[in-house]
Amino acid sequence: MVSLIRKKRERQSLTTEEIDYIIKAYTRDELPDYQVSSLLMAIFLNGLNDRESADLTSAMLHSGIVVDLSDVPGTKVDKHSTGGVGDKLSLILAPIVAACGVPVPMISGRGLGHSGGTLDKLESITGFNVHLDLEQYAQVLRKHNLVLIGQTEDIAPADKRMYALRDVTATVECIPLIAGSIMSKKLAEGIDALVLDVKCGSGAFMKTPEQALELAEKLVSIGERFGKKTIGYITNMDQPLGETVGNWLEVRESALALQGHGEAAMMEVTLMLSGTMIYLGGRAGSVEEGVAMSRAAIADGSAFQKLLDIVTEQGGDADLLRNPQRYPAASHIVDVPALQDGFIAAMDSYEIGMTAVELGAGRIRKEDTIDPVAGIEFLRKAGQPLRRGETIARIHTNNKDIIDASVSRLQAAIQITDNQPSPLTMITHRVDAQGVHKL
Amino acid sequence: MVSLIRKKRERQSLTTEEIDYIIKAYTRDELPDYQVSSLLMAIFLNGLNDRESADLTSAMLHSGIVVDLSDVPGTKVDKHSTGGVGDKLSLILAPIVAACGVPVPMISGRGLGHSGGTLDKLESITGFNVHLDLEQYAQVLRKHNLVLIGQTEDIAPADKRMYALRDVTATVECIPLIAGSIMSKKLAEGIDALVLDVKCGSGAFMKTPEQALELAEKLVSIGERFGKKTIGYITNMDQPLGETVGNWLEVRESALALQGHGEAAMMEVTLMLSGTMIYLGGRAGSVEEGVAMSRAAIADGSAFQKLLDIVTEQGGDADLLRNPQRYPAASHIVDVPALQDGFIAAMDSYEIGMTAVELGAGRIRKEDTIDPVAGIEFLRKAGQPLRRGETIARIHTNNKDIIDASVSRLQAAIQITDNQPSPLTMITHRVDAQGVHKL
Repeated sequence: MVSLIRKKRERQSLTTEEIDYIIKAYTRDELPDYQVSSLLMAIFLNGLNDRESADLTSAMLHSGIVVDLSDVPGTKVDKHSTGGVGDKLSLILAPIVAACGVPVPMISGRGLGHSGGTLDKLESITGFNVHLDLEQYAQVLRKHNLVLIGQTEDIAPADKRMYALRDVTATVECIPLIAGSIMSKKLAEGIDALVLDVKCGSGAFMKTPEQALELAEKLVSIGERFGKKTIGYITNMDQPLGETVGNWLEVRESALALQGHGEAAMMEVTLMLSGTMIYLGGRAGSVEEGVAMSRAAIADGSAFQKLLDIVTEQGGDADLLRNPQRYPAASHIVDVPALQDGFIAAMDSYEIGMTAVELGAGRIRKEDTIDPVAGIEFLRKAGQPLRRGETIARIHTNNKDIIDASVSRLQAAIQITDNQPSPLTMITHRVDAQGVHKL
Repeated sequence: MVSLIRKKRERQSLTTEEIDYIIKAYTRDELPDYQVSSLLMAIFLNGLNDRESADLTSAMLHSGIVVDLSDVPGTKVDKHSTGGVGDKLSLILAPIVAACGVPVPMISGRGLGHSGGTLDKLESITGFNVHLDLEQYAQVLRKHNLVLIGQTEDIAPADKRMYALRDVTATVECIPLIAGSIMSKKLAEGIDALVLDVKCGSGAFMKTPEQALELAEKLVSIGERFGKKTIGYITNMDQPLGETVGNWLEVRESALALQGHGEAAMMEVTLMLSGTMIYLGGRAGSVEEGVAMSRAAIADGSAFQKLLDIVTEQGGDADLLRNPQRYPAASHIVDVPALQDGFIAAMDSYEIGMTAVELGAGRIRKEDTIDPVAGIEFLRKAGQPLRRGETIARIHTNNKDIIDASVSRLQAAIQITDNQPSPLTMITHRVDAQGVHKL
């Protein structure tokens, strides 16, 4: 192991067998954490080439179960987002794509830091069960073209162990390690193709277009090496996606979006991703056709019906999606007024995400429980004109002690200027096997 | 700790307080190895500036006892070598410097890898006790201007712990960490000034002049920051020093050198170092005067007498130094013949050092015991003419199984050419507070 650490320290590449040895030995508890953390820092600073990244992914993937969905007919396609604030796109696009005839086997994660997680959002639907076993997973997928579950212990255990070590050794923000972690979990799902939503901006883990593109290229390169068609997009995370942040609030917004009432900027991203999934799933001849099919599935109600069906199938109270007024409200719903006249120039989505966490929508410590109704609604977004005192946002919480601080934090996170700012570009690049395409 | 690792990862410098915290917490077992090893790799790849190196040294120094020798009159001076093959210079120069009136409190280490250690050599003298307590240490120094002991557990325990971790995490060969490790131990001895012998070449840890100079400058910078006059030399380690490698063989050679029979190249380095120590100790007005005083101390017998006195004081059989024929011989003393006519062009001292280790002169595993008589005598050195079949070297060992392999390994390590090579330059640079001086 010392000689392998030394190799990476000296910027040499590790062989397939060496990477395999490291991951196998670490998973079997045959390598001490201190050697692996030293190697991780060497990787952080000296990188991994595309072949090494694919080998790392493969080794972590094969540390656990790789689901075989070959019995389920159709080209199985999933989407992965690198995480953002108000990012509820999975809840909207999965039913759309499934309604268009492409099977979507979706294994989601929980919120991390300031960013939300699809699993936490699904669990805010009363009764919804994200803990299906792998047999039920395939059955539900076959029946509905859709299944929505959480990661099981059997999937990529090496990644779980490595991630925990990275978290305490300052080796998290490393593109090849992030890519290996994402892809080892996604490839374990049994998919045939993958669409990636690489978020970029204040509320994303990738803050600059350069970082986002580097990650997208790495992810696509790994996917293609595994023989999975993979297309990535760089999308904007300089303000929260849509009009809400918080678990139930986002489910409610997703149900409305599937009924034709989605915010334009959010729907632009959602439809590009769903259109691409339908195209990769072989049900559309182009992404554009896939986008048109997505719009049609919203217009004819089939996408919303798909959401209702899957919620019912997985034990959830689907009627709440039709009648959200039945859902218990937060004990405190408080307006956040604008502090001056002008236009919203920028919304610091990291700050907004952290405010939502403090209101109860996320976890500060791992063991914290989530309050499903906690969160933030936005009545105004970037570019919109405001008058002093007008309500920009509304906070929902059951913790009254946090209200004043949250109002101030949100006011500080929203920057107001005198002049109308130029509109945000929601999707800046497509990355596929042919390279990077500016959109 | 994660934020401190992140700082170093991002090439920022750590504050004095941060470095102090890390070393204190690690020594108290409050930091896990995996975080420290991740930091060590970040330091390996991103470096430490001179202030950080001095802070690291200080924190490791103060993790243990710092000997106070202020009661002992005179300017106390020691020498440190970065380690080589056949490097017996301490045994020769310490008695010279002490005989010239400069107190030499010397705490030495054991052999490491291919390189020998002064402590192992001293212990080859029957009865010699290197385990004095710190009170005896000061007493013996006061009486003889000289004391020769091994490192105690109380000196720089943080360095011991850190070194063990570096050894298993591929973070050994890092100049600021090497410098901190050396200086924390040396500054704990109670010295006022220090001379450094930074070896460079095939048998040294620093293989190139650039590395050796970088280390020398770092060591001098740290010494000066602690208010200790520090002068370093870059000296040649492209062939073994002197005519022997092996513990008792080197003691015997040292005794002969102190009686005026030292090999010229070896004595050139020895006298430059001893002259510098006498100068720093305030007994000579210049290094040159110190060198002349060193020669005089050999010529008048006072230096050899000093060695006899200190060996007797520390329990050793001093008569063995006068009558080395009394020392038990190795059971096998075997000639190594030259394989062709020509001149010795180069001697791979790393290979020679490792051959000596295999003969019994060093440890392959930590728990191995050393055979004091094992080693190699050289009858020819670089630049000397040879005839095929003529004896170049003689191996001494009690392990007959290793003889054939050792003969071949030595023959392979000694490169013979047709043309007379140019002579080796033994001392290439002096490094002091004013900078680097080519010699």
